[in-house]
Amino acid sequence: MKRDDLQFDSHGRLRHLLTIEGLPRQTLLDILNTAESFISVGEREIKKVPLLRGKTVVNLFFEASTRTRTTFEIAAKRLSADVINLNPSASSTSKGETLLDTVRNLEAMHTELFVVRHRESGAAHLIATHVPEHVHIVNAGDGRHAHPTQALLDLFTIRRHKGPIENLKVAIVGDILHSRVARSEIHALNTLGAAEVRVIAPKTLLPTAVEKLGVHAYTDLRAGLDGVDVVIMLRLQRERMTGALISSEQEYFNLYGLTPEKLGFAKPDAIVMHPGPMNRGLDIDSAVADGPQSVILPQVTYGIAVRMAIMALIMGGAPQAESPPAGGRRA
Amino acid sequence: MKRDDLQFDSHGRLRHLLTIEGLPRQTLLDILNTAESFISVGEREIKKVPLLRGKTVVNLFFEASTRTRTTFEIAAKRLSADVINLNPSASSTSKGETLLDTVRNLEAMHTELFVVRHRESGAAHLIATHVPEHVHIVNAGDGRHAHPTQALLDLFTIRRHKGPIENLKVAIVGDILHSRVARSEIHALNTLGAAEVRVIAPKTLLPTAVEKLGVHAYTDLRAGLDGVDVVIMLRLQRERMTGALISSEQEYFNLYGLTPEKLGFAKPDAIVMHPGPMNRGLDIDSAVADGPQSVILPQVTYGIAVRMAIMALIMGGAPQAESPPAGGRRA
Amino acid sequence: MKRDDLQFDSHGRLRHLLTIEGLPRQTLLDILNTAESFISVGEREIKKVPLLRGKTVVNLFFEASTRTRTTFEIAAKRLSADVINLNPSASSTSKGETLLDTVRNLEAMHTELFVVRHRESGAAHLIATHVPEHVHIVNAGDGRHAHPTQALLDLFTIRRHKGPIENLKVAIVGDILHSRVARSEIHALNTLGAAEVRVIAPKTLLPTAVEKLGVHAYTDLRAGLDGVDVVIMLRLQRERMTGALISSEQEYFNLYGLTPEKLGFAKPDAIVMHPGPMNRGLDIDSAVADGPQSVILPQVTYGIAVRMAIMALIMGGAPQAESPPAGGRRA
Repeated sequence: MKRDDLQFDSHGRLRHLLTIEGLPRQTLLDILNTAESFISVGEREIKKVPLLRGKTVVNLFFEASTRTRTTFEIAAKRLSADVINLNPSASSTSKGETLLDTVRNLEAMHTELFVVRHRESGAAHLIATHVPEHVHIVNAGDGRHAHPTQALLDLFTIRRHKGPIENLKVAIVGDILHSRVARSEIHALNTLGAAEVRVIAPKTLLPTAVEKLGVHAYTDLRAGLDGVDVVIMLRLQRERMTGALISSEQEYFNLYGLTPEKLGFAKPDAIVMHPGPMNRGLDIDSAVADGPQSVILPQVTYGIAVRMAIMALIMGGAPQAESPPAGGRRA
Repeated sequence: MKRDDLQFDSHGRLRHLLTIEGLPRQTLLDILNTAESFISVGEREIKKVPLLRGKTVVNLFFEASTRTRTTFEIAAKRLSADVINLNPSASSTSKGETLLDTVRNLEAMHTELFVVRHRESGAAHLIATHVPEHVHIVNAGDGRHAHPTQALLDLFTIRRHKGPIENLKVAIVGDILHSRVARSEIHALNTLGAAEVRVIAPKTLLPTAVEKLGVHAYTDLRAGLDGVDVVIMLRLQRERMTGALISSEQEYFNLYGLTPEKLGFAKPDAIVMHPGPMNRGLDIDSAVADGPQSVILPQVTYGIAVRMAIMALIMGGAPQAESPPAGGRRA
Repeated sequence: MKRDDLQFDSHGRLRHLLTIEGLPRQTLLDILNTAESFISVGEREIKKVPLLRGKTVVNLFFEASTRTRTTFEIAAKRLSADVINLNPSASSTSKGETLLDTVRNLEAMHTELFVVRHRESGAAHLIATHVPEHVHIVNAGDGRHAHPTQALLDLFTIRRHKGPIENLKVAIVGDILHSRVARSEIHALNTLGAAEVRVIAPKTLLPTAVEKLGVHAYTDLRAGLDGVDVVIMLRLQRERMTGALISSEQEYFNLYGLTPEKLGFAKPDAIVMHPGPMNRGLDIDSAVADGPQSVILPQVTYGIAVRMAIMALIMGGAPQAESPPAGGRRA
C-alpha cells in the first residue's frame, strides 16, 4: 500500500490527494462533510474565508484544461490564497528529470500546494514522492489514471440529492476504458458501499476484466439503466472516433447517448450527472441535459465547495479526524 | 424596447451594460458622476476600495484584447474583487449552444460579473438573456455592434475637459462603418444632447443612411473639422487595407490622418481623442497624438474610473437613483 | 554617468533597478540587507506583508520566461501588491514607438512598477527614460545586457553561504559572451570587492578583451576552478549549438560541464550555483547539481526575498539610506 500511504502524513492526516484508491471510508466522509460547510460560502455576499491567507496555490497544468483550472483558482481565492497559474509546455518538461526540476523550483519559492494536471498517468504521484514536508499535491487528472476531485464532487452531488450512498444503484455510461473519472468514481462508490455500481459501454470501450473493479458491466444501455438511482454520463472524446473503437457518432448516440426515452428505464426520480464539457447530441440529448432530472450544473457549484474542502483539509486549515491510513498501519 | 429593458432589473436599476442604445440620459449621468468619485482612488497611495470584496469578476474574452482586458482587471482589483481571466478559443465555442454551456458553468461557480468580448455582434446580449438574477454582464465589445464602456469613458473625458456636452460639436473620424466604438459614441452623444455630432470618412467607410443615426456626414476632413470642439479619431484596422475599401495607407493618411495642419480647422481649444491603440502615421500624426490638444492618455486614466463605476453600479456596490428604464415603463 | 543616474531620484534614492553597472557599493549592501529581513516572511505561516497593498505591479514580459515571471509574481503578492501579467507579442511592439505607447498606457492606468523583460538590450533603460515620477522599473533581463536581480540574488547566496565577498575567489563558467547574467555578476562582484573574479569558457564564448571587465579569463576549466570558493555555472542555450561556436554537446560537456571530478579542483567547501533552468548533462552533471556543495535551490528561495527587497526599496516601502548615486553628484 505504499502508493496510498503517500497520501497521509506520519500522524495519519491527509497530506496529498492523488487518488481515491486506498482512501479509507472515513477520509471520504471527512471531505464530503467539510465540503458541506463550504457550500454556504458560495452563497454569501462576501464569498471569502481567510483559511489560506498568505499561502500560495500553484495551478501546475502540464495539460491544458481551462475549466478545471478555473474551479481550482476560484476555490483557492475563496480561501484567500494567492494563486499562480502555470502551463509548462509539454516539450520543456518531457523528461521526468526536468519535471522534477520545475517542481523543486516551485517548492523552493515556499509555495504550499500544487494542483497538478498531466497527460501521463502517475505524474502527480511522482511529484508527491519528491516534495518536502511543507508541500501538498492535489491530482487534477493524470492520464487515464485518476481524477479524484471529480469523483468526490460526484459523490457529494449524489449524497446531497439522493441520500446515503449505501442504498443506491449507480450506472456510469460511456468511455469507461479511457476515463480517469470513471476509475476514480468506481473506487469511491465502492468504498462508500454503494448498493451496486454498473458500467455501460460498447465492448471496445470497456477495460478487460472490468468486473474485477467491483462493477457489473453492460453493453446495452436500456438494460444497464434499469432501476438505477443515479446515471453518470462520461464525455466521449471525439478523437476516439478516428480509431476503430466506434463506427460513427450517429451510431454511438443511437446506442449510448442519453435520451428521455432511455432515461425512462432508470428509476423515475433518478438523477443525471455529467462531468462536462458535454457533447450535446453525442453523449447526451439536450432534453436530458437541461431536463428536470439533470444535476449537471449543481455538480459545478458543489465542485467549488469540494475543492475548497480538499485544499483546506490537506493544508491543515480545517479540522480532520486523525484517521489512520488504509493498510498495515491500522491498529 | 425588449433589448434595452434587459439592461435594467424589475426595480429599474441598471443590471447589465450591453449597449448605450436605449439607455436614458439619467443612467449615463449616474455612471459619469459615479466615475468622478472613483478618480481619486487612482490617485491615492493605496488604490483600493472594498466594494466588491469576496466577489468574482470573470474576464470572458472570446476575442483577444490584452489592452481592454487589462483595464477591466485593474478596475476590478481596485474594487477588491477576485479576477479570473479566460480566453475561450473561438473554436471550442463556435456554436451558440456551447457558448451558453460555458456561461452556465461559470455562473454555477457563483461568479457575479462577466466582462464579455466577442467578435460576433449580439454575443453579450445573448448571454445576458440567459443568466440568472445574480449574474451581471458588461459588454467589452461585440462585433461591429457596441463598445459601451469606451463610449462612456469618452463622454467622461469630454465632460471633464470641455464641460457640458450640450454645448459641444463633436467629430468622429475614420472607419465609421466597422466601428463599434463609433456606434456607441453616436448614441451616447445624442442622448446627452450634443450640439452636433459629425462623422468623417471616405464613402466606402460610411454606413449607408448614416444620417439616420442623428449625425452629419462628411467625406472631407477639413470641412468636417471646421469649428468642432472635440475630435475623436478611430483606429483604422490595417486588415481593411486588403479589401477594396481604401486605395493605400499613404492616401488614407493624406486625406484622413490627423495632422496639426488639419486640426487647425477645429476650434483652437479643441481636444483630440483616440481609443487606442494608435496607428501613428496612419490614423494620426505623432505631432498631434503627443501634442497639447491630445487627451489620449487621460482617456486611459479615466477608463479605469469609468469601469470601476460601471462594475460598482451594476453590482449594487454604489448608490444609484432608481431611474426607470427608457420606454413604456416610465410613469 | 547619465545611465546610472537614471536609477536614482533627485534625493539619491534608488528609483529603478536597471543594471548593476554604476550602482554604489552601499546600494548593493542596502538591497542585500533588506532581503535578509524578507527571508523570514517566506518561512512564516502567513507569508504576506502589507507594504505594497493597493499598488499594481505589471509583469511586462516581451520575452517569455515563466520562471522569472513567477518569482516576481510571488514576490509582489507577498508584498500584497496586485499583479497584472502581460506578454505583449514581439510583433505588436516591434517598433520602439509602439513599445512606448504600451508603457504610456500602463502608466496612465496609475500602475506603479513595471518588471520588464525584453530580448533587446537597453529596453528597460529606454522605458525608464520615459516614465513619469510615480513609475518604477525593474529590469528582469534585457538582451545580452543585464539581469540585475539575478546577480543580486547570487550575491545574497554567496554572502549567506560563504561570508564577506571581499575574501572570496569566484569563477563564472559557460557562455560568458551571450550572458546578461554573467555581465551583471561581474559588475556586482567587483563592486563588492571580491578577491578575484574568473571567467571560464571556450574562446568562442568569451567576449574580446574580457579582462577589461576586471576578470581573469580561462579556457581550461580545471585551471580556472583551482582554489575558488564559488562556482557559478551558466546555462548554455542549446540554440548556440547550431552555430559554429561549439563543436558538439558531448564535447562541451567533456570540457566545460561541471562534474564531481572537475569540481574537485575548487576548494573543498566551494559552493556551486546555477541560475536555472539547468541543462543536466550539458552545463552540469546531476551528481553536482544535487550534491552537497550545490546551493542551486537555496538561490531560488533567496530570489523571492531579494525581489521583495528590490520592489519594496524602489517603491519606498522599505527604509533606505539616502546614499548618493555614483559619479559626479557625490559631495
